[in-house]
Amino acid sequence: MSLEPLRRPRRLVPGDRVAIVSPASPFPPGGLDAGLEVLRGWGLEPVVMPGAAATTGYLAGADGDRAVGFAKAWLDPSFAAVIASRGGYGSQRMIEHVDWEALASVEPKAFVGFSDMTAVHEAVALELGTASIHGPMPSWTQFAENPVVQEHLRLALFEPERAQWIASATATTMRGGTATGVTFGGTLTLLAAEAGTLHHRRDVAGGLLLLEDIGEAPYRIDRALTQLRRAGYFDGIAGVVLGSWVDCGPYEEVREVLYDQFFGRAIPVVEEFGFGHCAGALTIPLGLKATLDADAGTLEFAEPALR
Amino acid sequence: MSLEPLRRPRRLVPGDRVAIVSPASPFPPGGLDAGLEVLRGWGLEPVVMPGAAATTGYLAGADGDRAVGFAKAWLDPSFAAVIASRGGYGSQRMIEHVDWEALASVEPKAFVGFSDMTAVHEAVALELGTASIHGPMPSWTQFAENPVVQEHLRLALFEPERAQWIASATATTMRGGTATGVTFGGTLTLLAAEAGTLHHRRDVAGGLLLLEDIGEAPYRIDRALTQLRRAGYFDGIAGVVLGSWVDCGPYEEVREVLYDQFFGRAIPVVEEFGFGHCAGALTIPLGLKATLDADAGTLEFAEPALR
Repeated sequence: MSLEPLRRPRRLVPGDRVAIVSPASPFPPGGLDAGLEVLRGWGLEPVVMPGAAATTGYLAGADGDRAVGFAKAWLDPSFAAVIASRGGYGSQRMIEHVDWEALASVEPKAFVGFSDMTAVHEAVALELGTASIHGPMPSWTQFAENPVVQEHLRLALFEPERAQWIASATATTMRGGTATGVTFGGTLTLLAAEAGTLHHRRDVAGGLLLLEDIGEAPYRIDRALTQLRRAGYFDGIAGVVLGSWVDCGPYEEVREVLYDQFFGRAIPVVEEFGFGHCAGALTIPLGLKATLDADAGTLEFAEPALR
Repeated sequence: MSLEPLRRPRRLVPGDRVAIVSPASPFPPGGLDAGLEVLRGWGLEPVVMPGAAATTGYLAGADGDRAVGFAKAWLDPSFAAVIASRGGYGSQRMIEHVDWEALASVEPKAFVGFSDMTAVHEAVALELGTASIHGPMPSWTQFAENPVVQEHLRLALFEPERAQWIASATATTMRGGTATGVTFGGTLTLLAAEAGTLHHRRDVAGGLLLLEDIGEAPYRIDRALTQLRRAGYFDGIAGVVLGSWVDCGPYEEVREVLYDQFFGRAIPVVEEFGFGHCAGALTIPLGLKATLDADAGTLEFAEPALR
């Protein structure tokens, strides 16, 4: 077995309603306004789901309530996409409260988010067999203020043909070569925190692994990578696409850890590709076939991310 | 199945040689001297294993070399115990380089350590079926300077009958009652980072779970607990013994996370029991049957920790 491309949801068109959900931490009061304006500027009608503005400490309400909010958004045919308001922490507490079987019975839709949403992307892939969009979230200042970030997400959602070929301006080659495989991954510590659970992938052979993180010291990055390696999460992968490591200490030290874990695998590895928590973060589809050119610093998808 | 008591190594006597190993991070130059003096004061002859003083960044030498140092100490019949110099990070990188089958073929011996050594305790339990000692390490200032910490470890090693009954001066009841089971656990994030690997326990039913950590914000504690819960690491446990949470933020916030995960289980839970990274840390045997009295704040072992 190896990773196969997942089902593609339909693309967005002006006039579409999109649901805003909070599977993890709450957004600050008013923190969504600028982002919603951006969505409205694209002709979308964003609807903040009931409960999505709740705050219970670092969680956006109770686990069960966050799950209900997410499930309602997915099951409601009037929504063309489900967009997370922000990350933070909490998706892993919510996941097991979702009735995935019910969600699998309806048309797939685009899910957008990153960071803590990595756990949701994994569940959407494993439970729903559906491709999703690793992209910025409306409460993030980059989403609200950076036209490049906005435009890359907009293209992925509305004109995905134009975002099939992703050229990174910042990428450098850790190990050259090209590799074709299905994209998967996201935020390192979230992927590591899935290990041992029902939503941990057992088979990633042939996959193109994406990794990035924020606020993790090099030894913590090492620990998470070591856990994933021991759990088989790198077995047979075709290539590695490394994003940003914001607030993780000197990049040289981070790089040493990444190099130690990946260089010896004799597969293409590109670093500083420019996705994750960095300024100007790129939008990258998950669950679809792409070719990584680690020399050129490009990722070319075989199909548009959305139908 | 449920957790069964493990084999007990023999106790120490004056004149014994003990091996000092570094499975994780290096100790600073001279950082072992005071601790070794304590051991010598007990009539022991501590031997720092070749390579145990190596430094490669945050690791005490290469993974394979650290494994060799640990294995040599275990296999050498002239050593009565194996004591870790310090924790830090790295045991999980070393574990798979150890030939556990070879170690299983010789007489068990006492292993002493905590923190990053949690991963070694787990491997000693799973691979060697041997009880071990969650206790202070020679490079720690508490080991070198705190007579209470020293005496509790000395009793556990030399006169374990006198350390069978552990009364905590600081313990408070989170949920009352008594429970009898086999002790297991250690540092939370280390246990979480074992999930999904070959050294993650599949069956902990009937166990008394020990947990503590250092330098982890409440949401990180939540994440690690959530991972362990989802991985089945709390399934059927008989009781919980919570230690210290040094540098983890306000204890009230930490406590809320612990309460959220454990109170609803309707099993005895004691908190602030006084083991881990705190001043005056108690020594607690792992892999042996004990009775937790969560009202009295005591842990009474059915047998001495060492034969």
